[in-house]
Amino acid sequence: MTPPASEQILRDVRDDGTALDVVGIGNALVDVLSHEADDFVATHDLVKGAMTLIEPDRATQLYEAMGPGIEVSGGSAANTIAGVASFGGRAAYLGKVHDDQLGVVFAHDMRANGVVFRSPPATDGPPTGRCLIIVTPDAERTLNTYLGASAYFSPGDVDAELIELSRYTFLEGYLFDRPEAKAAYRTASEIAHGAGRKVALTLSDTFCVERHIDEWRPLVADQVDVLFANDAELRALYGIHLDHAVDRARDEVETTCVTLGPEGSLIVTSEGIVEVPPHPVEVVDTTGAGDLYAAGVLHGMAKGLPLAECGRLGSIAASAVIGHTGARPGQSLAQLA
Amino acid sequence: MTPPASEQILRDVRDDGTALDVVGIGNALVDVLSHEADDFVATHDLVKGAMTLIEPDRATQLYEAMGPGIEVSGGSAANTIAGVASFGGRAAYLGKVHDDQLGVVFAHDMRANGVVFRSPPATDGPPTGRCLIIVTPDAERTLNTYLGASAYFSPGDVDAELIELSRYTFLEGYLFDRPEAKAAYRTASEIAHGAGRKVALTLSDTFCVERHIDEWRPLVADQVDVLFANDAELRALYGIHLDHAVDRARDEVETTCVTLGPEGSLIVTSEGIVEVPPHPVEVVDTTGAGDLYAAGVLHGMAKGLPLAECGRLGSIAASAVIGHTGARPGQSLAQLA
Repeated sequence: MTPPASEQILRDVRDDGTALDVVGIGNALVDVLSHEADDFVATHDLVKGAMTLIEPDRATQLYEAMGPGIEVSGGSAANTIAGVASFGGRAAYLGKVHDDQLGVVFAHDMRANGVVFRSPPATDGPPTGRCLIIVTPDAERTLNTYLGASAYFSPGDVDAELIELSRYTFLEGYLFDRPEAKAAYRTASEIAHGAGRKVALTLSDTFCVERHIDEWRPLVADQVDVLFANDAELRALYGIHLDHAVDRARDEVETTCVTLGPEGSLIVTSEGIVEVPPHPVEVVDTTGAGDLYAAGVLHGMAKGLPLAECGRLGSIAASAVIGHTGARPGQSLAQLA
Repeated sequence: MTPPASEQILRDVRDDGTALDVVGIGNALVDVLSHEADDFVATHDLVKGAMTLIEPDRATQLYEAMGPGIEVSGGSAANTIAGVASFGGRAAYLGKVHDDQLGVVFAHDMRANGVVFRSPPATDGPPTGRCLIIVTPDAERTLNTYLGASAYFSPGDVDAELIELSRYTFLEGYLFDRPEAKAAYRTASEIAHGAGRKVALTLSDTFCVERHIDEWRPLVADQVDVLFANDAELRALYGIHLDHAVDRARDEVETTCVTLGPEGSLIVTSEGIVEVPPHPVEVVDTTGAGDLYAAGVLHGMAKGLPLAECGRLGSIAASAVIGHTGARPGQSLAQLA
């Protein structure tokens, strides 16, 4: 059941003939986070700072090795969408969970954020996906994802009404890791452009970029209106130095947002480069920093704000999650803004 | 499967002929925490600061009304036992979960803390119990417990070997809310005393005290060696002013620990009253403060430390959980101590 808040958003949008701000599509995951010493990463052959896909046996083995955890709804695009809603934006999300306890938690948390989430849970197949996240003392997070039900999101799950209603369709690069989700990505992108809407993409992870580089270069050039990447991902995409990668993105993409960690970010368009300062915070756990940065920028763009202001919202949102454990904001971003 | 760390603890204890420090028995719950505005408590008819038992329908309704949550293993005595293990103590826990995703989370977190936990999960009956926790801006927590599988812990689940091996058997007052768990409480207490061990009890909650007052007064006098209570619970137990309640506890119980919130605690014995200062911390969420205080004191007592030092460990442990969201320490208490 979609609760009243989400129902009300859709009714408002239909009634007043306006739009949703952003619909996100991604792997619907519940995060399991534990803080570990540095040697945990080496001992368990993890790729520090990256997202590695793992199979069920490996997930069980790694979970047994992890310390006591906390469970929080996650998923890259889902974190972004929760952030847009926390800013007061009208947001929706598409992704697949299983009809199990973690699936209930994921759906609850999306709807409790005020997000329209009506993707039906799977009643067969694997359980709800989860991401085992190791946070090391340097606040870096290392992601180990068992996709579970999320991998079965397919073109048939693409909710055309929500995409047509949304100013921006936001897609995560991680979708490219499974054929069905990749096909759904293309379907969603076509529906959005067919309705005169914009498509935004986050590159997600350097390894993810490298896994799909041949498909991504033409796709970014032809089908992406707003690109999110950190400096390493953008360099990986174009295989060149950051300055040249920024130049190339400027030629190929309407708006490119490049995050630079503690140095803030750049928003690049044909009209120039906006340098966005970071929002100061004591870093506890960087999980979700990029996701929430995208939330602030997309919320601002959907509201038609100047790019410098969009960037400021991105910095605020990122700082709100890196100051605590977990990738979802613990407070209203609208109030922080 | 008990993982190697827990297996090793038991093997060590059997080999060297010593003892476990503490075994805890309580309702095995996963906490679902959300931060809410003050009016949430009134709107949903919650009893602020207390623990209220709720049925499944009410749990569903309340969960739908709650904002996005985080899930963390909880349960009062379980929190205490996780704390003892975090101090480096040898600890075990008895409690019932269901064989479901939240049950796996609970068992993982106990074992990942180094706790011996070998209570088999239920394969029929209700799902793993959960506690819906509303944290208000004053950092007070309001508990709403759906007991689920935990209510079915019965005398047959009492693991006599672990109790006989443990210097202290720690029982939570909440067990008295269901007949089977209450019977298990009495069985465990008899086994502990029969083996020459000590029994510790936490009164848990003023409403819980009032629900069972006629049974508790004689039980505390006859069967409890170490009593934990906050000032309100101790006053509720004896129906008198705190000073007189302390006098009465001193007459009836070997050791009584009275927590006084931000003013620290008292440890009362026939030899006098030890005043324990609080450990300063910025309070975010008081969930688990009393549970972790008990962890520090019991750990110290099991190690034969002076009462003032036991109290200091209690204050440190309490401060370690009220500075963040959730009732389990996020860092090693042994290092903090």
